[in-house]
Amino acid sequence: MSDATAIRAAGTRAQEMIDALAAISADSDRLTRLYLTPEHKRAAELAGTWMEQAGLSVRMDAAGTMRGSLPPGRPGPSGNKSLLIGSHIDTVIDGGRYDGNLGVVVGLLAIEALKARGEALPFGIELLAFGDEEGVRYPITLTSSAVAAGVFDPAALDQSDRSGVTMREALTAFGGKPEALAGEAYQADSVLGYLEVHIEQGPVLERTGAPLGVVTAIASQSRHRIRIKGEAGHAGTVPMPMRRDALVAASELIVGIEAIARKDRKNSLVATVGEIEALPGASNVIPAEVRLSLDVRAATDEARRDAVATILSFARKTEAVRQVALTFETVLEKPVATCGPRMMAAIQEGASRVMGKPAQQLLSGAGHDGLSMAHLAEYGMMFVRCRGGISHNPAEFVTVDDMGAAVEGLVEAILALARQEAAR
Amino acid sequence: MSDATAIRAAGTRAQEMIDALAAISADSDRLTRLYLTPEHKRAAELAGTWMEQAGLSVRMDAAGTMRGSLPPGRPGPSGNKSLLIGSHIDTVIDGGRYDGNLGVVVGLLAIEALKARGEALPFGIELLAFGDEEGVRYPITLTSSAVAAGVFDPAALDQSDRSGVTMREALTAFGGKPEALAGEAYQADSVLGYLEVHIEQGPVLERTGAPLGVVTAIASQSRHRIRIKGEAGHAGTVPMPMRRDALVAASELIVGIEAIARKDRKNSLVATVGEIEALPGASNVIPAEVRLSLDVRAATDEARRDAVATILSFARKTEAVRQVALTFETVLEKPVATCGPRMMAAIQEGASRVMGKPAQQLLSGAGHDGLSMAHLAEYGMMFVRCRGGISHNPAEFVTVDDMGAAVEGLVEAILALARQEAAR
Repeated sequence: MSDATAIRAAGTRAQEMIDALAAISADSDRLTRLYLTPEHKRAAELAGTWMEQAGLSVRMDAAGTMRGSLPPGRPGPSGNKSLLIGSHIDTVIDGGRYDGNLGVVVGLLAIEALKARGEALPFGIELLAFGDEEGVRYPITLTSSAVAAGVFDPAALDQSDRSGVTMREALTAFGGKPEALAGEAYQADSVLGYLEVHIEQGPVLERTGAPLGVVTAIASQSRHRIRIKGEAGHAGTVPMPMRRDALVAASELIVGIEAIARKDRKNSLVATVGEIEALPGASNVIPAEVRLSLDVRAATDEARRDAVATILSFARKTEAVRQVALTFETVLEKPVATCGPRMMAAIQEGASRVMGKPAQQLLSGAGHDGLSMAHLAEYGMMFVRCRGGISHNPAEFVTVDDMGAAVEGLVEAILALARQEAAR
Repeated sequence: MSDATAIRAAGTRAQEMIDALAAISADSDRLTRLYLTPEHKRAAELAGTWMEQAGLSVRMDAAGTMRGSLPPGRPGPSGNKSLLIGSHIDTVIDGGRYDGNLGVVVGLLAIEALKARGEALPFGIELLAFGDEEGVRYPITLTSSAVAAGVFDPAALDQSDRSGVTMREALTAFGGKPEALAGEAYQADSVLGYLEVHIEQGPVLERTGAPLGVVTAIASQSRHRIRIKGEAGHAGTVPMPMRRDALVAASELIVGIEAIARKDRKNSLVATVGEIEALPGASNVIPAEVRLSLDVRAATDEARRDAVATILSFARKTEAVRQVALTFETVLEKPVATCGPRMMAAIQEGASRVMGKPAQQLLSGAGHDGLSMAHLAEYGMMFVRCRGGISHNPAEFVTVDDMGAAVEGLVEAILALARQEAAR
């Protein structure tokens, strides 16, 4: 178990840096920092200044990602490969200060600590402060990490934000270079792996009383749109047996979806109806049509597909019994992105050392930059406990000690990787 | 059974008059005729012209109701009492042409038919074309019939429409007299009863294959607002057993409400959730709060109150099991308005004669001017079959023959009342 004083000190520095970043916002009364905005630039420049102070060679890449490089401290068996460490510094509208930003801060403090301890690593380190993970300004997301991983689709440059500004225009105004994006991809054989520290955004670590956890994968996910058409009618004049109420049918389906999702705990299955609209939507009219969103995630693609099939079959039964017309559309489908075994092992070792007990493994239900980086190299993620599992909200909170533990955990994970390399 | 040729002829005249009224609208492409608007005035004047042509003494009262009077044809045992016959000529926005308007047209054609047959009735008749039954322009409704029944609350004159025009201002501009409303109430001892012919607005007569039906009462009704507070969370990161999903709780309640309402067919119990809103309403966020409307109606106040109590008790169980916070508010409560036995008997006799079979009795789930008129006198209603039970919609439809049957049915009901009077 690490030294509590060192952890507290690292956490205190992390808090100061988090607070300095949180002061950079589009809005005076809340934290909003979208991709390629003036506040994104100020936050990136602040991160760049910190990187320089830590002795990294710093440059902003063509996509607006601030990159800080540290060469290997000694020759490694894998040649001059680099370990990439990153996270994002954009936020949602009225977001929290830890989501994304904590990963950059923890990465920087871990590099500082390794230098302070005089550790000579057998690989270089590249610290990456990505600018677009939340996907709030433009329809697509993970722009910055897709560029770094070489999987960016340049068609995305023609997307417009709500003000009609294309990504190409915004990137140029920001000081980026749309024409140079393809050249910013790392060569796969120069990369050892990608590590990211991120708040959990869920309640699991808090419930189990652990500051850190090891991510096994980013869940398989799909999004669907369901429409149920019944028959409108006067709420006072149509007897119950003559109704084809679209909202009652939808409600039966929502209850059924929950029951189906509860059955597969082994695969961390979750299913959520977050949006519902009933038409015409008057208190004295039987709903004629209901529109629902459905979000399904699981630890494996198979478990998710099985769940969707079970839900659809349940929906077809409801459709038949209630004599409504149901359409079921899949609007998004993302396969599971499994963490690399070497990276996972390193994080497992690092987090367990700091906590003095075996770190829990858990699935990431949320998407992260690792989804892009997995195309380039093995990736691994360390989760940090956050209060109430709350994120994307000003109430987002991580304790100073947990942030310190994350810094120490990442240091230990990097040292574990160095030992892995030395043992090859 | 009445003569099919006479019924067809009366129905054809009714259709012409219905179409002439339907041409009077605020909108060129749909039927919209709100209280105290220029189109209300034109429709009232057209009705007034028809009343004059039928030999009635016509005046517009201080609330904008067109009233046509016919004195008794011979002295009656109850003195010079009058039978009131009425309905409304306002519509909802994008409404149908039969709702309300049909009652005025049928009333007029019945009076014409009685005169043509030389029937000398032992009571006078007052035909009333009310202007505000739908309650679309101002928050309160039944203004015109409340004035006629002497139950109008003058505080309602200070209500504003969406443009900020008070009812007092609109009534004055229309040519009405806000200060004279109290003097427009009928004296209870001068009224024999109130009869209204109206489309069913429900599917019961169509299913049973009858053009006409006898209303027993206007249902007991209450409206409620339900709020369910759970806990927001990321749709990907909160395991199913840790969720307090407000929408799943609401769905369980909606399914439960339907089951409770289905159990009491004897009392024509209906319960409807027509409005639902889930907050924050994003596909990737577990709903934190859901707001529902609930409309409950039944043949008796007791049955309705029992149902509301059962629903509330079910809701409290859902609240406890799902660990959500539920509030249940009653925003409207109207007692049942039972039809008078003499008026019901007359309509029963009239409708049965025309159909050549006993007319079915049914509850009116919708509110009508009878709710006001019940304060003044016995009231009775005859329902006319409408296609698919559809109303408040351009698709509203009544066949010519059914309208003719309604005219003949009302004539026979009035004659039945005349016989009742003679037998006293």
